[in-house]
Amino acid sequence: MCDRKYAILGTGALGGFYGAKLQKAGLDVHFLLKSDYQHVSQCGLFVQSKDGDFTLHQVNAYHNVEQMPQCDVVIVALKTTQNYLLPKLLPLIVKHSGVVLVLQNGLGIEEDIAQIVSNVHIIGGLCFLCSNKVGPGHIHHLDYGKITLAEYNPEYQPHLITEKMEQIAHDFQTAGIPIELVPDLLLARWQKLVWNIPYNGLSVILNATTEELMANADTRRLIEQLMNEVAAGAKSSGRIIPHSFIETMLNYTVKMKPYRTSMKIDYDQRRPLEIEAIFASPLKKSQTAGVNLPQISCLYHQLQFLDQRNRSAHPTP
Amino acid sequence: MCDRKYAILGTGALGGFYGAKLQKAGLDVHFLLKSDYQHVSQCGLFVQSKDGDFTLHQVNAYHNVEQMPQCDVVIVALKTTQNYLLPKLLPLIVKHSGVVLVLQNGLGIEEDIAQIVSNVHIIGGLCFLCSNKVGPGHIHHLDYGKITLAEYNPEYQPHLITEKMEQIAHDFQTAGIPIELVPDLLLARWQKLVWNIPYNGLSVILNATTEELMANADTRRLIEQLMNEVAAGAKSSGRIIPHSFIETMLNYTVKMKPYRTSMKIDYDQRRPLEIEAIFASPLKKSQTAGVNLPQISCLYHQLQFLDQRNRSAHPTP
Repeated sequence: MCDRKYAILGTGALGGFYGAKLQKAGLDVHFLLKSDYQHVSQCGLFVQSKDGDFTLHQVNAYHNVEQMPQCDVVIVALKTTQNYLLPKLLPLIVKHSGVVLVLQNGLGIEEDIAQIVSNVHIIGGLCFLCSNKVGPGHIHHLDYGKITLAEYNPEYQPHLITEKMEQIAHDFQTAGIPIELVPDLLLARWQKLVWNIPYNGLSVILNATTEELMANADTRRLIEQLMNEVAAGAKSSGRIIPHSFIETMLNYTVKMKPYRTSMKIDYDQRRPLEIEAIFASPLKKSQTAGVNLPQISCLYHQLQFLDQRNRSAHPTP
Repeated sequence: MCDRKYAILGTGALGGFYGAKLQKAGLDVHFLLKSDYQHVSQCGLFVQSKDGDFTLHQVNAYHNVEQMPQCDVVIVALKTTQNYLLPKLLPLIVKHSGVVLVLQNGLGIEEDIAQIVSNVHIIGGLCFLCSNKVGPGHIHHLDYGKITLAEYNPEYQPHLITEKMEQIAHDFQTAGIPIELVPDLLLARWQKLVWNIPYNGLSVILNATTEELMANADTRRLIEQLMNEVAAGAKSSGRIIPHSFIETMLNYTVKMKPYRTSMKIDYDQRRPLEIEAIFASPLKKSQTAGVNLPQISCLYHQLQFLDQRNRSAHPTP
């Protein structure tokens, strides 16, 4: 196997799943953990997966970034609400000419990271993954797992497929994770928002699963209207999302297993919601280009209200 | 006193309150009741009011419209979700050249009533009333009570103040109910929607009181955006609602006692919501004029989802 060293920042449903798959495939993986540190350093990680369960009895677990080795690829798998930690974390662990791989949803994150670390490659990854963390060091992989990768260029200019992208794709594919390499990160991010904005938003606001939302004619129609607004936002960034893409997303969701979205899980557990990355940032980007997205704005304000009430009623420790 | 005979269709929070006030002032009032018929015919009506409590030990209560006398003024105080009953009720009880007084929210109701009864005056009334029915024959009047009246003309053409309007205003004012007579029913209805659309909608969707919605910066802003959309809808009907009116509504609501809206009460009691009159009908009217109201449409679809789930989970008897 190759000797690329991977760091996982945020060993949850997503980082824990991909990190464990990479280690299982023989890669050298280093996990940063917070609340699960004790458990994982003693007992390892357990992945319960529709592709087959497995346990890693021994993992490189860290509670403190200063003890981690410098890595070739640092996977940012935190919730975006924790991205305020990145200026303290990234400069310590990413190698010169290494890669920061951002496996998060939303817009504008790479721009922020480019301010924090220079002389690195920043690659964005959009994950199509249904996975939950169900206990300490216990990941439940429900379905999917594919990642779409694109390298970040200043101003989100489209980019050729780079060697770094190929290397990462190789490692992930070795681990059994399907990878698609694409030239346009901003387009890929807007495409991902076509799903995230309606389903994450409405699942919280209406306390509903994806299945319930698709079974009702009114929410089905509202979802399509919201997807059209995301396409209008993309267009304001010069990216075209055709209606056939929207239809594919709708059909794909109907066929999905009933799913509690990640934002709904955060809400139910009274964690902060990723409203900034998924809603505020696309709204701001479109607004700057002179385009209003009124229904997305409506969801944004509703979510802000719910998030604030949710956390003020029962403060997180 | 005069000898005008009044019928109240729907003796609830609103019809019960106004009907009781009219009877207390000496008018001849006839109440149609459904679930409360037994109780009210035996024990009368009790109005608990910030203006002073009172009981009417004896009222003309009916369970069946066929036993009611023909009346000069028939007050439609049903929920709009019950308006499918009007073709059976109105022709039997409104006198020739009498008045149908519609004390309901929403658009387009008078047009429907004009199809049911001819040779009558149709007057629309917009009630600014905080009142709940808290038990059989027991009305709790919390605040306000003023009614704005305007007579309906085909196509909602503005209308001079008519003699019928003056007569009704006289009766209500005798009963201590402030009345404002205005020439333009359609404008008055759109103005009322400036309040009803944001507060009724969001109180259900976000499970919140008017006070909570106004205390949060995000919902405060969304409410203002929704009010601006109502003004855009009014404009599509040729009616101008200036921004100063919207500011007045916002300030008025901040000063109101914390209030559970009528739609929220209906939702909590698993009754059908007045979505058709308050949301669908304004949306349709604007759409016909080529104007989209995307945020109101968003609320509309969310409410439809919630209403359907609310009632299918626990069917109303």
